[in-house]
Amino acid sequence: MNFKIVFRILGRIFILTAAAMTPSLLVSYLYADGAQTAFIISIAILLSVGFAIVFAFKNNERAMRPREGFLTVALSWALLSLFGALPAYISGVIPNYIDALFENAAGFTTTGATILETVENLPESIIFWRSFTQWLGGMGVLILTLAILPAGERGSQNIMWAELPGPTSERLVPRIRKSVIILYSIYVALTLLQTIMLLFGGMNIFEALIHALSTAGTGGFSSRDLSIGAFDSRYIEYVVSAFMLLFSVNYGLYYALIARKLTRLKKNTELRVFLMIIVVSTALIAANLMMNHYYDSVETTVRHSLFHVIAMSSSTGYANVNYNLWPEFSRIVLLILMSIGACAGSTGGGLKVIRVTVLFKSAARELKKIIHPRSVNIVHIDGQPVQDKTITGILHYFIVYVMIIIIAALIISFDNMGAETTVTSVIAMISNLGPGFGLVGPGLNYSGYSHLSKIILTMTMLVGRLEIYPILMLVMPSSWRRT
Amino acid sequence: MNFKIVFRILGRIFILTAAAMTPSLLVSYLYADGAQTAFIISIAILLSVGFAIVFAFKNNERAMRPREGFLTVALSWALLSLFGALPAYISGVIPNYIDALFENAAGFTTTGATILETVENLPESIIFWRSFTQWLGGMGVLILTLAILPAGERGSQNIMWAELPGPTSERLVPRIRKSVIILYSIYVALTLLQTIMLLFGGMNIFEALIHALSTAGTGGFSSRDLSIGAFDSRYIEYVVSAFMLLFSVNYGLYYALIARKLTRLKKNTELRVFLMIIVVSTALIAANLMMNHYYDSVETTVRHSLFHVIAMSSSTGYANVNYNLWPEFSRIVLLILMSIGACAGSTGGGLKVIRVTVLFKSAARELKKIIHPRSVNIVHIDGQPVQDKTITGILHYFIVYVMIIIIAALIISFDNMGAETTVTSVIAMISNLGPGFGLVGPGLNYSGYSHLSKIILTMTMLVGRLEIYPILMLVMPSSWRRT
Repeated sequence: MNFKIVFRILGRIFILTAAAMTPSLLVSYLYADGAQTAFIISIAILLSVGFAIVFAFKNNERAMRPREGFLTVALSWALLSLFGALPAYISGVIPNYIDALFENAAGFTTTGATILETVENLPESIIFWRSFTQWLGGMGVLILTLAILPAGERGSQNIMWAELPGPTSERLVPRIRKSVIILYSIYVALTLLQTIMLLFGGMNIFEALIHALSTAGTGGFSSRDLSIGAFDSRYIEYVVSAFMLLFSVNYGLYYALIARKLTRLKKNTELRVFLMIIVVSTALIAANLMMNHYYDSVETTVRHSLFHVIAMSSSTGYANVNYNLWPEFSRIVLLILMSIGACAGSTGGGLKVIRVTVLFKSAARELKKIIHPRSVNIVHIDGQPVQDKTITGILHYFIVYVMIIIIAALIISFDNMGAETTVTSVIAMISNLGPGFGLVGPGLNYSGYSHLSKIILTMTMLVGRLEIYPILMLVMPSSWRRT
Repeated sequence: MNFKIVFRILGRIFILTAAAMTPSLLVSYLYADGAQTAFIISIAILLSVGFAIVFAFKNNERAMRPREGFLTVALSWALLSLFGALPAYISGVIPNYIDALFENAAGFTTTGATILETVENLPESIIFWRSFTQWLGGMGVLILTLAILPAGERGSQNIMWAELPGPTSERLVPRIRKSVIILYSIYVALTLLQTIMLLFGGMNIFEALIHALSTAGTGGFSSRDLSIGAFDSRYIEYVVSAFMLLFSVNYGLYYALIARKLTRLKKNTELRVFLMIIVVSTALIAANLMMNHYYDSVETTVRHSLFHVIAMSSSTGYANVNYNLWPEFSRIVLLILMSIGACAGSTGGGLKVIRVTVLFKSAARELKKIIHPRSVNIVHIDGQPVQDKTITGILHYFIVYVMIIIIAALIISFDNMGAETTVTSVIAMISNLGPGFGLVGPGLNYSGYSHLSKIILTMTMLVGRLEIYPILMLVMPSSWRRT
């Protein structure tokens, strides 16, 4: 392991995080909400540590290898979680540091889980920081660093590969930096568009921005305790539904759209499967709710079904109604959607639609092979054959995913929250969703867990956001061997 | 598909099942329990159908291929479930046929789930038939048929392969028939040994035999409502624990022991992992129960922990105490054991220890490969390298396993039994265990489910017992194409 490369980037991450806190500091002054000092101290700490590291590790001759990419990403995210928690902790808004850490990690990882009973009495700057971390964490903090503070790092595609959600990450254009700039431009444009559309729905500029930032990162933090439900507006519900969907689609497709590569859009297997999942699940849940006479009109039933299907699939985790009270069938459908998650290359979490698609297709191929041993079947994605190596990788990813869920559930089960709460808490964390079922359902929160459990759940969020391997590297002794 | 071969064997299965019912008929006469006529009618139906089929499909020139082996096994087990339910239904003991089917399938598949509120007022012959089906189903009905009624069928190893639990089934000796006779001899000997040891514990001969048959098949049906707990005897609890363990180990190892091939025993990875799982889980649960002050002595705590760990791992599903009331951590450990199950080549259910071991080792190899892309790692089992083809097969098996659990849970969720009950019902069925958690916990039963759910749960038991693929073949159109 070449630690010089790793540390140089960590230093720049600190500096960028300090820069990312300045808008919140401005908000704090604007509203005079009392959190100014907390932000100034936090920024000062980040800057001093950041510059110290950057000056200490100047020279760097070697190119970054995959393992250094993984370690950089894992360490950066661990440090982001630890240091991003400072404003809430120093200002006394969240007096316990473990709680502040959990809340902040739920921001950066776009999980949106909370330990707060209420958010409506928080300083505006803290509310802004919570949503802004989701916006930053959604697209990835490191790839932003690469774009803003480039250092001619060779091998930086290893960072992009480790940070962008999904089994593969293609470069849009040959140069990494240009790819990142294109991705972020699309991201900013869509976020602004949603802010404007929410303003038309009657939100004030602050709330429109908060909810656009949280939606863009598919995070789900809100400035209201009743979340989107607080606005009681069909228009807002539909706008948020639409943008949750837009933000959970592979951003490469928007680039294809702009570059008029429409065949790529048409041939995209993942998009087709994702939309099919949304439509079928909405129909199933709406039918199930109607048969059980939950809402008084068809429009209300379909609207709530659609909203929560997209909220789960996109891993945003917004809730308008208490889906915890829905019939068992609808609840299990939501749990499945939560586990599948969004498309690769989006800000969404979960296993990712592409992986689930490959798992399905590969299992179907295996069944055919058992009946007709001499038949030749190849798994196709986007019209192209998928390599066996890729399939095996995805199969193993799923196995490790399940193992991590089991281990985390075992540890937090010491809190005796009941099987449903325990298991869905872990799934909600690894999927970067937020609320689960039972005692962590919509409107409820994670404050009931012990400190140990909160740390485990925080680690599970990071495992989910970074797709397992970078975080596993952190705990493997062989990662720390010097080369 | 060559249907002649399939049907010829089905005919013989009917005849064998009729023969298998005669001991129950004798029990019925002995106790004059009123079920004689029901058994006579059932035997008459089985014999007439059986002989009709055997005479209709006489000639058979071709060797059996894997697909015919699968179809034969699947159809045989479906028919066994349907026809074995006749005595309970005709005698009026279980007035609803779907209930009788569920109960009988829970026998043959060695699941041991029940829809009966009480078993203590049942006719003795029906109690005997329930346990005898578990004994028959444990080792496999078709391989018994092959041994008793051979017809020089070429390719009959395809039946053995499809019916014996586990990813691979080795022949003990070159000739199939001789292998089957060795396996059944070990089975009979162990069953008799347990019967004698239970007699020493104060059981009468009927109860000793019933519990030995149910234990041998790792089924778990009892003649008492409180199951093994009804006897309130430490001796019986330890004897049953020991035999549940003996019956969930690969029978090939007993043959190795007899044939003095001790190196095979020492090198056996699965046995080592299985025993480690038992010891570690017992220690974890005992510690968890002690910390929560559940029982008043260390011996009681360890005894109950060991008994339930083995009852779950072996997929027998006996219960002495209400483990549903144990702390969450212990409950989740039990759920994991339930899912892992027993060793391949035993009468136990679940995913099987060997599969879980390969999944673990393969995932660990994958992690190493991600960090050190050029490293070469090979998965070893029993000191031998495992082929990639085998690993991929096991990975896919796991995926399909999970998919079936999800689909079955979705369908039975219409009964609104709560998430914990719904999910653990399905896991208990596919693992051929019996009781689950929540409303289907120990002492409770499956009578609350709708007819549709009972049929789905019955199919899940069959899927679990036959390890998925034969039953999936039944519903695939390509299986029914004539060749």
